[in-house]
Amino acid sequence: MNKRFVTFLPAGVKVEVEPGTDLLTAASKANVEIKAPCGGDGTCGKCAVKIQSGSVKARRDSHLATRIAEKGFNLACQSLVQDEDLVVEIPQTSALTKHQVLVERSSIGEGISDALSNYLLRVWQLKELLLEKQESPLNGYPLKPLCKRVRLTLPAASLQDNRDDLNRLTMALKKEIKCTDIQIPLPLVRNLGEILRTAQFKVTVLLSEIGGKAEIIAIEPGHAHQPLYGIAVDIGTTTVVAYLLDLEKGRVVDTAGTHNRQARFGDDVISRIVYAVEEQDGLQTVHQSIIDTINTLIMDLLVKQRHIKETDIRVMMTAGNTTMAHLFLGINPKFIRLEPYIPTTNFYPVVKSKELGLRLHPDALVFSYPSVASYVGGDIVSGTLFTKMGNEDAPISLLIDIGTNGEMVLGAGDWLVTCSCSAGPAFEGSGITFGMRAMHGAIERLEIDPQTYEISYTTINNGKPVGICGSGLIDCLAKLRCSGVIDRAGKFQTNLPTERMRIGEAGPEFVLVWREDTDINRDIIISEADVKNLLRAKGAVFAGIRTLLNVVGFELDGIENIYVAGGFGNYLNIPDAIAIGLLPDIPVEKYKYVGNTSAKGACMALLSQEAWQEANNLAGKMTYIELSVGNLFMDEFVSSLFIPHTDLTLFPNVSL
Amino acid sequence: MNKRFVTFLPAGVKVEVEPGTDLLTAASKANVEIKAPCGGDGTCGKCAVKIQSGSVKARRDSHLATRIAEKGFNLACQSLVQDEDLVVEIPQTSALTKHQVLVERSSIGEGISDALSNYLLRVWQLKELLLEKQESPLNGYPLKPLCKRVRLTLPAASLQDNRDDLNRLTMALKKEIKCTDIQIPLPLVRNLGEILRTAQFKVTVLLSEIGGKAEIIAIEPGHAHQPLYGIAVDIGTTTVVAYLLDLEKGRVVDTAGTHNRQARFGDDVISRIVYAVEEQDGLQTVHQSIIDTINTLIMDLLVKQRHIKETDIRVMMTAGNTTMAHLFLGINPKFIRLEPYIPTTNFYPVVKSKELGLRLHPDALVFSYPSVASYVGGDIVSGTLFTKMGNEDAPISLLIDIGTNGEMVLGAGDWLVTCSCSAGPAFEGSGITFGMRAMHGAIERLEIDPQTYEISYTTINNGKPVGICGSGLIDCLAKLRCSGVIDRAGKFQTNLPTERMRIGEAGPEFVLVWREDTDINRDIIISEADVKNLLRAKGAVFAGIRTLLNVVGFELDGIENIYVAGGFGNYLNIPDAIAIGLLPDIPVEKYKYVGNTSAKGACMALLSQEAWQEANNLAGKMTYIELSVGNLFMDEFVSSLFIPHTDLTLFPNVSL
Ligand code: FES
Ligand SMILES: [Mg+2]
Ligand SMILES: [Mg+2]
Repeated sequence: MNKRFVTFLPAGVKVEVEPGTDLLTAASKANVEIKAPCGGDGTCGKCAVKIQSGSVKARRDSHLATRIAEKGFNLACQSLVQDEDLVVEIPQTSALTKHQVLVERSSIGEGISDALSNYLLRVWQLKELLLEKQESPLNGYPLKPLCKRVRLTLPAASLQDNRDDLNRLTMALKKEIKCTDIQIPLPLVRNLGEILRTAQFKVTVLLSEIGGKAEIIAIEPGHAHQPLYGIAVDIGTTTVVAYLLDLEKGRVVDTAGTHNRQARFGDDVISRIVYAVEEQDGLQTVHQSIIDTINTLIMDLLVKQRHIKETDIRVMMTAGNTTMAHLFLGINPKFIRLEPYIPTTNFYPVVKSKELGLRLHPDALVFSYPSVASYVGGDIVSGTLFTKMGNEDAPISLLIDIGTNGEMVLGAGDWLVTCSCSAGPAFEGSGITFGMRAMHGAIERLEIDPQTYEISYTTINNGKPVGICGSGLIDCLAKLRCSGVIDRAGKFQTNLPTERMRIGEAGPEFVLVWREDTDINRDIIISEADVKNLLRAKGAVFAGIRTLLNVVGFELDGIENIYVAGGFGNYLNIPDAIAIGLLPDIPVEKYKYVGNTSAKGACMALLSQEAWQEANNLAGKMTYIELSVGNLFMDEFVSSLFIPHTDLTLFPNVSL
Repeated sequence: MNKRFVTFLPAGVKVEVEPGTDLLTAASKANVEIKAPCGGDGTCGKCAVKIQSGSVKARRDSHLATRIAEKGFNLACQSLVQDEDLVVEIPQTSALTKHQVLVERSSIGEGISDALSNYLLRVWQLKELLLEKQESPLNGYPLKPLCKRVRLTLPAASLQDNRDDLNRLTMALKKEIKCTDIQIPLPLVRNLGEILRTAQFKVTVLLSEIGGKAEIIAIEPGHAHQPLYGIAVDIGTTTVVAYLLDLEKGRVVDTAGTHNRQARFGDDVISRIVYAVEEQDGLQTVHQSIIDTINTLIMDLLVKQRHIKETDIRVMMTAGNTTMAHLFLGINPKFIRLEPYIPTTNFYPVVKSKELGLRLHPDALVFSYPSVASYVGGDIVSGTLFTKMGNEDAPISLLIDIGTNGEMVLGAGDWLVTCSCSAGPAFEGSGITFGMRAMHGAIERLEIDPQTYEISYTTINNGKPVGICGSGLIDCLAKLRCSGVIDRAGKFQTNLPTERMRIGEAGPEFVLVWREDTDINRDIIISEADVKNLLRAKGAVFAGIRTLLNVVGFELDGIENIYVAGGFGNYLNIPDAIAIGLLPDIPVEKYKYVGNTSAKGACMALLSQEAWQEANNLAGKMTYIELSVGNLFMDEFVSSLFIPHTDLTLFPNVSL
């Protein structure tokens, strides 16, 4: 069949495709990444591209496609290559970060992408937490890494002491590590005799030791003293963050973060599962995509740390939600999405790096944090470990990670209950007219003058506003209510004496920033529909909290600590979050921002066998509450669709 | 560089080599096998070939090469390819069996090679023992194979019972197998969800379970009922024998045997080690050679059992001496040969079939019998298991396997001592002028008339005599002494009134068969040098026995059972062996032929976890006596160089 060339600008990458191919697929083939949070369904509108030369055919007509077309753009996912070669421009707003850029970046400034700025923000945040403040990644656990070196000097072989070489080695090792079950793979046995004798029976054994079982990973002649590295990775649905750790010193050497390249298959775990299950080779493609993402991070770290080689990294720990863990290991995620929502496994086999094609030492062991259920993953177990709320003397605490799913854990020492409420992606900016992630130019704080309805705001990096991110949305909701722009049910007061209040295409809306003050040449507004979306999101989270409390028979005021986790958490305005009824009305001092606890717990487990064992205990001990069983959650949810709640006694300190 | 073609007849195989290549190497490259017991040193004379066209250059002059040249032959190992293409004929006497022949064989008859006849003999012997007599391969152990099937019907997943799939499976499995440590490799997890649901939660789990640890090998939908196969292999230095076992019925389905293809690197373990250590890629070559040998046997079995596929064989057990075990697994054997004679390991890792390239199911587990020391291997441990001399109530017993090394075990229940004496290959026919293996035409029984010195004999298959094999040599030595042809020190009585006694090129010799009665057109003789060789061989064995007894403080008459193992064992004339002082002078009833105990013990271990654990116990419990330490053995050896011994009180029943 005749093929056609598609050239993507600004990268200038050319790719040959068959007529009938859509531009999203063509771009993916060219390794040019276009945003596609809806997974190519033609519903999110983020994949807009400009056809510079040639013409395309629309897959089907839609309201969205028409609106985009009016602005001179086409939806990449809906545009099919015809008989002509094409030149297609990808506007900056549709492009996902290119990985090469990450490695070459130098400073934040004009001209770098949103994604990159977002990335740099995160790196700084992590560095601040971990490197500048010198917070120990061990978080109180003893340093006893999952992979360690043991330096041995064995008695030389003789006619009188003629034990075989391996026995000589393991007997000496058993004395050092107090572990009787020692495994060694055949390839390491093959040349053991020569290694022992080259080094006059002085050797360094690299091993992983967990729960009374040890596995030898490498045997090196002489007593090795070069550093030993491990890598801890938080596999987020959106962002992937890696920490390079010096295992013997117990410290973080460096960190890096980037977008999860799976983003091109959709924004949320459901789209990823659908792609994996329904497309040809879908699982393999989505699996490879996260492996590529992690390999990019590894290379990024290694380029910065020039003296470290891939093969110097001998062990890896990952934490991520259950779907991410399945996809990372190439496990079919199909049944996570189908009732009764069963993951294939919550405890993942330890594998060798080479089985997954990771750019580490080929024999590096790769551990995955155990999960609890389909929608309570290793990232939450990792966070629970970090907070120590499973410790014997822990007071009643709540860990809450607000993202697409609001996952939470309630417990004290020996009991822990957990659930996941489908909060939806509103707080991540999705489904909100001008919603966006916490990137350059996002409104993150906002005030409304209750007299004049004039608005003051701050944006990330003080950029000209382009949209509003999660923390901004919470502020916004609280301030809309305070100033009387909306009522307790989120209904707009359309008769207000301000031109900011108006009726738009989709109903009542309120202008937050006038077009001339924005960087997008459009009024930034929030609509009544947006508010309803936000109410559903906050209502789901609060209903989840109430359901957990109900199950164990406690009241809101019984909670001693609330740990707010996730990248979003650090920017959350707690009083506003309480005011809208997202979080419980307990004293602000009881709230603690804990940041990316998924990554931090992964570091802990990598550096401490005790921490790793505790992580496994926690996963086994957490009781998962399935919210779709019974009416408890649904009743709570309906009651939570008001600001702050239908039952005002639950929010005694919130003034209306 | 210009290459030359060498064509080998009668196979007609052509190979391209560089000038300077020797013909043994060229043949090996062409996969044409030539005997080379000396490993290509130019000292054994077995690689004689005839140059049909073209000319070669001799590597160096030697007495042997000259003698061979006089007969119109060249030593393949010493003949270097020059500037011409060559046509080389391999006489039948120099050819090793071709494996294809094994598969196509039909009956013993003229025109089939010695090796093949030898092979068929063994197969018959095994079939008789195992199939016709219906002797159970379990030998008293309970049937509990190393690889077994468990058929499970799991409760279906629901919102109320939402355990993850793997947990659901392992919990059900734990109830069945009473084992808490269950491992599963990632590839089996990947599609577990689909498998469980396809089969409505009815599955068959294939697993290996040993010592409280289980590893899942496969998970199949539904309840499988087709047979489950395993293979037990005795890896002998010379011969390799395989047993195909039905693991669920606990019976031998079929057997096959062939030559160890490593023979081209030399007859004994030392030549194999030298080749592996000193030649480029030597270890890989020698390793691959035994893998190829075993694969040939597997295919042989499967061709016969047409309904069985490679992938139906799920587990394998091998038993062999320490060098064979090292080479089979590709472990460097270098230090086995160098003082202080240390094997790399005596306990071998369990590996997957695919790691070795065996033609079994790729995930089939491959077990190797543990060994005790460099010269007491898994074959001896296997034999010890078979005899049950390590059982609690066992009387004092001696297991003896006479081959190149005479290995023996002495013990009773909780104590076992073992040693290996370098008997040399005399009883295998090597180093004896007309010595040969137990093949077609070998003299195996012999009488000498003490008056006339006339000789009567029987040969294997009643063929015309071509040489004399081990059992014939023992007979011969006994009869030479009885009839006064030699004295107690093995010296020839050159003044006897018979023309059979004469002085040959290498000193006194005695004609056993006149040329006209042979199939080789030469007188078959035994020389004084041959007798000295035999005395050293039998002296070493007896000295080994005495040394073991000495170590534990027992006398010869304390021995209650003597188990004679090895292919050779079954043909041994015990009274003659006692008469020459090879075996102790105890009542013949206490001797038992036990045949190929290496193979039998391998079958037992494959079919019974208890047997496999006992094999490992035995290997750990056996005390190895290194004969080269101290003077004990050497003193005994010197005293044993007489017929039957210097100390005649040790042989009260032997008449001189
Ligand atoms: S509209 Fe194209 S990916 Fe969403
Ligand atoms: Mg996360
Ligand atoms: Mg043997």
